[in-house]
This record gives sequence, structure tokens and C-alpha cells, in this order.
Amino acid sequence: MSDESIIYGKNAVIEALLSGNREINKILISKNIHSDTKINQIKELAQSKGIIFQFTAKEKFNQYAQFNHQGVIAQISPIKYTEFEEFLSQPHENSSIVILDGIEDSHNLGAIIRTCVCAGVKAVIIPSRRNVQVNSIVEKTSAGAINHIPIIKVNSLINVVNRLKENNWWIIAADASAKDNCYNVNYNDMNFAIIMGAEHAGVSKSLLKASDFIVKIPMENNFNSLNVSNAFAVIIFEALRQKLSKVNK
Amino acid sequence: MSDESIIYGKNAVIEALLSGNREINKILISKNIHSDTKINQIKELAQSKGIIFQFTAKEKFNQYAQFNHQGVIAQISPIKYTEFEEFLSQPHENSSIVILDGIEDSHNLGAIIRTCVCAGVKAVIIPSRRNVQVNSIVEKTSAGAINHIPIIKVNSLINVVNRLKENNWWIIAADASAKDNCYNVNYNDMNFAIIMGAEHAGVSKSLLKASDFIVKIPMENNFNSLNVSNAFAVIIFEALRQKLSKVNK
Repeated sequence: MSDESIIYGKNAVIEALLSGNREINKILISKNIHSDTKINQIKELAQSKGIIFQFTAKEKFNQYAQFNHQGVIAQISPIKYTEFEEFLSQPHENSSIVILDGIEDSHNLGAIIRTCVCAGVKAVIIPSRRNVQVNSIVEKTSAGAINHIPIIKVNSLINVVNRLKENNWWIIAADASAKDNCYNVNYNDMNFAIIMGAEHAGVSKSLLKASDFIVKIPMENNFNSLNVSNAFAVIIFEALRQKLSKVNK
Repeated sequence: MSDESIIYGKNAVIEALLSGNREINKILISKNIHSDTKINQIKELAQSKGIIFQFTAKEKFNQYAQFNHQGVIAQISPIKYTEFEEFLSQPHENSSIVILDGIEDSHNLGAIIRTCVCAGVKAVIIPSRRNVQVNSIVEKTSAGAINHIPIIKVNSLINVVNRLKENNWWIIAADASAKDNCYNVNYNDMNFAIIMGAEHAGVSKSLLKASDFIVKIPMENNFNSLNVSNAFAVIIFEALRQKLSKVNK
């Protein structure tokens, strides 16, 4: 991670938290430093703003050795996240969004965001925990697409799904063991969210339960599932294919 | 790169070249060592076997500092490549293969191979130059798929395309600026090869010229093209969708 994407040192991190000018992905606090009033202030400010902080082994700080970090690093997002309710309140018609449930790999997140922009997806929703955040690798693998789509970070995906359903969005989860296949859904004439799961664990049970459709991509070989960004591309471009074939009729 | 994936030192590399038991992706020779009979023997053996050797800056060898490499490293492939003519001579019916024209990124190659296995693609063809070779990152990102599909390495892609055409295979190149769209091709009842181009340069002109179809994926936004592995997934799963919908009729 480049030096532009961190803020280091107790005072600088407090300042960033107070001003709110920079989007903070996460705050790392070394396990080896003693708590003092400034550390407590950082924890309180982070908590009040819903920003994750982690007590981290000393070794994790080795990569930041050239900075006088005092055991405190704030990882900065290259983008400003969008508020979910702000997005939801806008008018939507035949819109699609993607909800990512625990993507761990920066390359996958970058590729998914790039595909979203190509396919005209209206927003990307990620959880603030257990998901890679938008960082400089994501920025690079997205080919800059992170600047062309609202990215929304939320504390609870299940709350998001429920709010979407209240607003007549349809929820489609991708799951390799689903009975229905992704080509049998009619993606036209509705607002829909596609939920893609973690690389290994898939979509979590509570989200599967809350979904209107659970779909798989039919495979020729039962070798394994697709890479998550490839699976998402197949589904979202099937939706776009249907839309285009409707327009052309 | 892990130590299992290299052979180091003049004698060991000569032995590997003579025995032919290990598949060598590439031989690196430090620019800073003096040529001697053994180095000359390595160059001659490599040339006679069509294995690339590169004179490499000293710095490139820093990652191998713990090995007594004498300025010579052979990068070993985790798989045994398949011979193109051997593959071509087998019976093929409604088969598909992919030809990769200059993929640079190991993650992309791994994801493409994984998608190939899921989609029942019969072989992956890569050129021996100007394309990432099958290495340990490719193995990992393919989720082991490299062991489930023939991977063919050739010196000339244009020769491959010509040989395929002589054998009644259809050649389909993917190009973001094509006029035709990938949904208008009927992928059934033919053997076909899809050519995917380098991340930035796309498919080279000579291959485009030799292709029977050049297709694009219609986009909603003209932001940029898709990541190459995602683009390939969209096209090959469109072919599979057509096949499955024909079966179900």
C-alpha cells in the first residue's frame, strides 16, 4: 500500500476523524502500545462514526516502518463512499445493483466494479466488516472504475436487503448449489440486486433466506465454481443481454 | 515464486534440459556472468528445444539470493504442456478452445483456465513469448484447474489458427470495437476457437484478419472494456447457454 493511502500518528488520525474530510477504511492500533487519552479518543471517535478499528500485531506495522506512526495507522479509501439511504431515495427504474457478501480478494473486487460500470450497474454495496475495502489495488484492477459508480459501505447487509425489499427491489442471490438457473430469471421491468458471496463460503444463510431468487450458472463440468468476478460477469451480462434483446424487438 | 518452481545453477539447468523430465517455462541468465562452455551449452540446448532464454539484469536475481544459482535459473511449469498437433489429431465434435494472445497477468490467466474447466472448454493455447506462462500464481488463481485441462504452448499463434482452419474449426476473435455482437453467433454444431487479446493491446491484427468472426460484448456504458477474464466468461457462457437451450428444446 502506498504512503498516500494511510494517515499515521495519533494526532493526525484524530484530526482525520474529527474533520471527516478523508474516508477511513480501517484504523490499525498496535497491540504493543499503551492506551492513553489519545488512543481512547481515537477508539471513541471511530466507534461513534462506525469506523472499524483493530488491535494488530507489531509485525503488521513493519511495512510502515519508515513512518513515525506511534502505533496508529488509518487506512484511507481512494473514494468517498455513498450513503445507502441517499442512493435508495433516488428514482430507480429497471436498475440493478450488486451486493458483495464477504469478498476477500482485492483483484476480484476491482474486476467486479469494472464489470459493473461496463454493464451499467447503479451501485456496489459492501459490508464494513469481513470484506476487502476499496484500496489502491482495487482502484488499479478496476481500471479506474471506482470513480464511475457509487460504492456503498454498510454495517448490515441484511438491513440493506430488507430496506430494498420494502422499496420493491427484487433480491437475487447467486449460489452454485441453487436449483434454478440464472437464464430462467426475467431481469427486465424490475429493480434488482444480485448478491455474490465470499470466494469460499458463498452467500451467507440469512441473505439466501431473504432472497427472492437463488440462481446458479449451469456448468459443463462439476469441477468447481467460477471465480466470483467471472460468475458475476456471466449473470449481469445475461441480464443485459435480455434487456438489449427486448429493446431490439 | 516458491523455490519448488525453479531449478538453479548451471549443472542442474543443463541436467533438466537434457533429461526433459521437467517442463521449463523460461531460463534466466544474468547479464553479469561471463559466458563459458556451460552457458553456451544451456543456450544451445534451450534453442534446440524451443525454450526461451533471457539475459536478465542482476537485480532480477535478488529474489533468488538464497540459492547458489551461479547466474542461471530455470523457471519450471507446474504442469506438463500438451502438444498442439496431438490435441488436434483427436476427434472433436462441438468442441471449443481458447487462444490467448498476450495475457500478461497471472490472475487473469488463472481465472480464464478455471472458467474453461467450468464451461467444458477442451484446451487453452498460449504463445511461448509475450504471454504469462503457467506458474504458481496461475495455479493458485485457477483453483487447481490447470490440472484438469490440456494447456498448449506454441511458438506461433497464426500457425495454430491456420491449422485449426484447415481442420474446419471456426475462429472467433473478441474485440471491443467489433461491429458484430457475441450474442448473434450460433455456437452450436461447430468446433470453435475464441481468441482473447492482451489486457491493453487486444488481439493482434494478423489474428483478427485470420478470424471468421470478430465479436464484441455490447456494453451499457462506454467506460472501458471488461477485464479479459470477465469478457471471456461472458462469451464462453453465452456459447454454453445456447448449447443448453438447444438440448432442452
